[in-house]
Amino acid sequence: MEFTVYLAGQIHDDWREDVKKKSKEKDLKLHFVGPQTNHDLSDNIGENILGRQPTDYFKDDAASSINNFRTTVLMNKADFVIALYGEKYKQWNTTMDATTAINLGKPLIIIRPESAIHALKELSNKADVTVETVEQAIEVISYIYE
Amino acid sequence: MEFTVYLAGQIHDDWREDVKKKSKEKDLKLHFVGPQTNHDLSDNIGENILGRQPTDYFKDDAASSINNFRTTVLMNKADFVIALYGEKYKQWNTTMDATTAINLGKPLIIIRPESAIHALKELSNKADVTVETVEQAIEVISYIYE
Amino acid sequence: MEFTVYLAGQIHDDWREDVKKKSKEKDLKLHFVGPQTNHDLSDNIGENILGRQPTDYFKDDAASSINNFRTTVLMNKADFVIALYGEKYKQWNTTMDATTAINLGKPLIIIRPESAIHALKELSNKADVTVETVEQAIEVISYIYE
Amino acid sequence: MEFTVYLAGQIHDDWREDVKKKSKEKDLKLHFVGPQTNHDLSDNIGENILGRQPTDYFKDDAASSINNFRTTVLMNKADFVIALYGEKYKQWNTTMDATTAINLGKPLIIIRPESAIHALKELSNKADVTVETVEQAIEVISYIYE
Amino acid sequence: MEFTVYLAGQIHDDWREDVKKKSKEKDLKLHFVGPQTNHDLSDNIGENILGRQPTDYFKDDAASSINNFRTTVLMNKADFVIALYGEKYKQWNTTMDATTAINLGKPLIIIRPESAIHALKELSNKADVTVETVEQAIEVISYIYE
Amino acid sequence: MEFTVYLAGQIHDDWREDVKKKSKEKDLKLHFVGPQTNHDLSDNIGENILGRQPTDYFKDDAASSINNFRTTVLMNKADFVIALYGEKYKQWNTTMDATTAINLGKPLIIIRPESAIHALKELSNKADVTVETVEQAIEVISYIYE
Amino acid sequence: MEFTVYLAGQIHDDWREDVKKKSKEKDLKLHFVGPQTNHDLSDNIGENILGRQPTDYFKDDAASSINNFRTTVLMNKADFVIALYGEKYKQWNTTMDATTAINLGKPLIIIRPESAIHALKELSNKADVTVETVEQAIEVISYIYE
Amino acid sequence: MEFTVYLAGQIHDDWREDVKKKSKEKDLKLHFVGPQTNHDLSDNIGENILGRQPTDYFKDDAASSINNFRTTVLMNKADFVIALYGEKYKQWNTTMDATTAINLGKPLIIIRPESAIHALKELSNKADVTVETVEQAIEVISYIYE
Repeated sequence: MEFTVYLAGQIHDDWREDVKKKSKEKDLKLHFVGPQTNHDLSDNIGENILGRQPTDYFKDDAASSINNFRTTVLMNKADFVIALYGEKYKQWNTTMDATTAINLGKPLIIIRPESAIHALKELSNKADVTVETVEQAIEVISYIYE
Repeated sequence: MEFTVYLAGQIHDDWREDVKKKSKEKDLKLHFVGPQTNHDLSDNIGENILGRQPTDYFKDDAASSINNFRTTVLMNKADFVIALYGEKYKQWNTTMDATTAINLGKPLIIIRPESAIHALKELSNKADVTVETVEQAIEVISYIYE
Repeated sequence: MEFTVYLAGQIHDDWREDVKKKSKEKDLKLHFVGPQTNHDLSDNIGENILGRQPTDYFKDDAASSINNFRTTVLMNKADFVIALYGEKYKQWNTTMDATTAINLGKPLIIIRPESAIHALKELSNKADVTVETVEQAIEVISYIYE
Repeated sequence: MEFTVYLAGQIHDDWREDVKKKSKEKDLKLHFVGPQTNHDLSDNIGENILGRQPTDYFKDDAASSINNFRTTVLMNKADFVIALYGEKYKQWNTTMDATTAINLGKPLIIIRPESAIHALKELSNKADVTVETVEQAIEVISYIYE
Repeated sequence: MEFTVYLAGQIHDDWREDVKKKSKEKDLKLHFVGPQTNHDLSDNIGENILGRQPTDYFKDDAASSINNFRTTVLMNKADFVIALYGEKYKQWNTTMDATTAINLGKPLIIIRPESAIHALKELSNKADVTVETVEQAIEVISYIYE
Repeated sequence: MEFTVYLAGQIHDDWREDVKKKSKEKDLKLHFVGPQTNHDLSDNIGENILGRQPTDYFKDDAASSINNFRTTVLMNKADFVIALYGEKYKQWNTTMDATTAINLGKPLIIIRPESAIHALKELSNKADVTVETVEQAIEVISYIYE
Repeated sequence: MEFTVYLAGQIHDDWREDVKKKSKEKDLKLHFVGPQTNHDLSDNIGENILGRQPTDYFKDDAASSINNFRTTVLMNKADFVIALYGEKYKQWNTTMDATTAINLGKPLIIIRPESAIHALKELSNKADVTVETVEQAIEVISYIYE
Repeated sequence: MEFTVYLAGQIHDDWREDVKKKSKEKDLKLHFVGPQTNHDLSDNIGENILGRQPTDYFKDDAASSINNFRTTVLMNKADFVIALYGEKYKQWNTTMDATTAINLGKPLIIIRPESAIHALKELSNKADVTVETVEQAIEVISYIYE
């Protein structure tokens, strides 16, 4: 059985590659989609396509509309969602994607560090599963196939 | 025409194998999914992945979140659902899966022993079809192809 | 582009074969599903599977549950629906299937004789298209491909 | 507790008055809505408002659009639906309203004569309750309050 | 702020009266609805309205259709649901009502004894809150008003 | 990853061919659907299939029902929608298709000339992305694959 | 019975006052909501609240977001919708509101001049009723009460 | 016209009182609901009701389930949502509530400081309106009544 997995979350390390590698090792038939992980591209895509904007605010607004188009198309294809939180940053897009998964009835695994337990407790309570490492998330997915 | 069938219900005998074998004999193109049938694994999966929990209550809670993740992913794929009741046990997961099928508009066949008629009458009334044996359930499915 | 078409409607002549033949001649890539067209089988399926029922009323009730299971599974697969009315009979299942198509957002073509215009006017008004012959329905479908 | 009840069904006798009277006798707090029961008005409303139409077919189509507007507004307000079938007529609007109730998740009571059992068996199987008399339908509603 | 609360669960003691009394003491503006708590009436309502049925099976089926009509009307009105489990019985209607609440997005409080923890773990995990006593459930509701 | 794209909008130049050509150059795996672009056929399809109508009004009504059937079937298949506005015409079908995309949760790209900015501002605000040229729309789609 | 009516459509004459006056004369218990009819206010509301924007484009975008907030709040309250088209202007907001009504299952009456018949034929076909004058729309609403 | 407004967002200053005061001054008929603003109570409610938990993690989990029950009951009642972001904290509950509003079709006003523009750009783009001060949010709401 094949599944499409949306990998929400921070884009500041290569955790997505880690997920893909470990899934492959376990022979899980998964297709991965997710937000734009090239940070500069994600910030500049609005001006890249629509041209120079008056201020940074409007540059951000232009970029966000194209990022939202892209993530909605891909989220719609997903069978379930993994949302990974790091130690730093606001990570509001991660939270938006995770909440959207919940609201759309797409099962959700949250990966978050111990430091995020308290601040994330309500979202975590609504998620299907919360774990601390990529390895654990892969084990949860493997369990579908067992 | 191919269908994915979620086999809800008790996991204390090999009725799922029976369904699969009989479907194969009739050449029905069915893919089967369902809850974890390895009882020990189902009970321990929380601690297996998340580590030792403080008490049995929390061990159960951890396991349940991963079992629910798994069944939701698989239920979402199903075209219809068979829910089999045995003579014993509370079978609340069977009832939860059967009710979810009804609420999601997924057609539902209930298989239940005569002894369960009275206690199950309201759920049975909401199901599409209620039968007493695996053979009868297979006949109902065969009828789709006739 | 391929579509699955649910052929609702009376089962007293071979109009479904006519639809299939004409679709083939036009090379339309359509898969057809629909209610049980073997009338006796449709009436007896309840007793065939569940055994002898106390009275005709219960025989009918048993059959109807299995017919509904079957049609719901197949209707769920349909991209659009054709509902054909004949001159005779109450044709309440045709009306139930046609209304369900409307409520599920599945486009609906009604084929009905001139004699049914008045009594069918409200349903016809809710359908996407109403025609009088199988040929016209096929032309409507061909138009998707033009 | 107060409920709004949509009274679908034939308009050739005064069964709706009967329902209202009996509800009042039992002190049930019910508000009744339903299709236009003035048959001539229902047939002529299109031409009354939109002016003379080219043929009877277009007169019917004009009327049906206004009847459908009216019934949709009122059905949307209903907590549950009673659909009464008589011995005669096609009663396709009754069937359309009853099926819409089912699809919208509005509980449905069907009242139908013995002669309609066989032809109505699939719809009846999808309804919540099927009875034969107005008295029985009122008893079912009274039961909500007990 | 006023809320309508559906009290799902066993009907073998007076826990509903307890909920009502304690809510009143705390001045919570709650309207309570729920399944038929007169056990005999609930079993006999089918025959009471539809007349003698051929066997106990059909007596049960007749009763269940009227019970389901009633509970669906009332569940539709509820803002949230409390489902109480006792030590005994299968309590499948409780489970069906609780699962329906989850699927309809109506917040759910489960009250269950310690002995039910293991068997109820997956449903409990899907509920919003699980407690062990009526007092605790009332405290959860009070918290809405704080 | 393959997507089906509904190309809503004016049918008075060959912008759809332009979209297809540019997508091909970029090797994007897209399947295109959309409204009938043969204007005469679109106007006459009602009379072509249903025969001569009494007046132009009824000719239009007949055509519109078949056009709506066709576009609903195809819109249902789309993963996302591009709606292109030209300088001229009312373009109400474009607006209807674009709004339907929004309401169905299908991501929407609007292409519109500078002259349409003011009149289209509210719809544009609800769309995911608004651009001025086909090239820009293609870049937005390419971004899904990056 | 009271209804809330959303009056979509052009804001260049006082047709809404006309609707209100005529409803009052007929004693129809209607509450009216709709888009901002003060054209200047509607254009300037963005800058009024958010301050001066860099260009007219951004002024429009700011205004549109607040207009959309307002109309969505009010449309959500509506039981049905009247959309009036005039002879002039693009009237894309009218079309967006009318289409949204259709997609939300809110019954829709379109009022449009003869000159708009052809260009509006597909939307008109999806509306419940299309008329040419405010008087006719009022008659359609009166019919609900008859 | 009266509306219920859910005030999502940080609970570290008295902005909600500010909203209420300013609404009152403008005579806006608004009822306010929102998350628990007593921070200690929100953290301790799990142990208050369910008793001492094994570790802080489980204390958090217990609290979160009761907080989620409360906010879901209240969010369900809301006609629209205001979500206010402060300079500090992760504010993931704010983001979860705001995203839920979007997914439920409840119009959303975000109030956020300039410093949050970049990190919040995608959520902001999905909201109906984004402003920087409580005053501006009140002006947006006032605009509904104009």
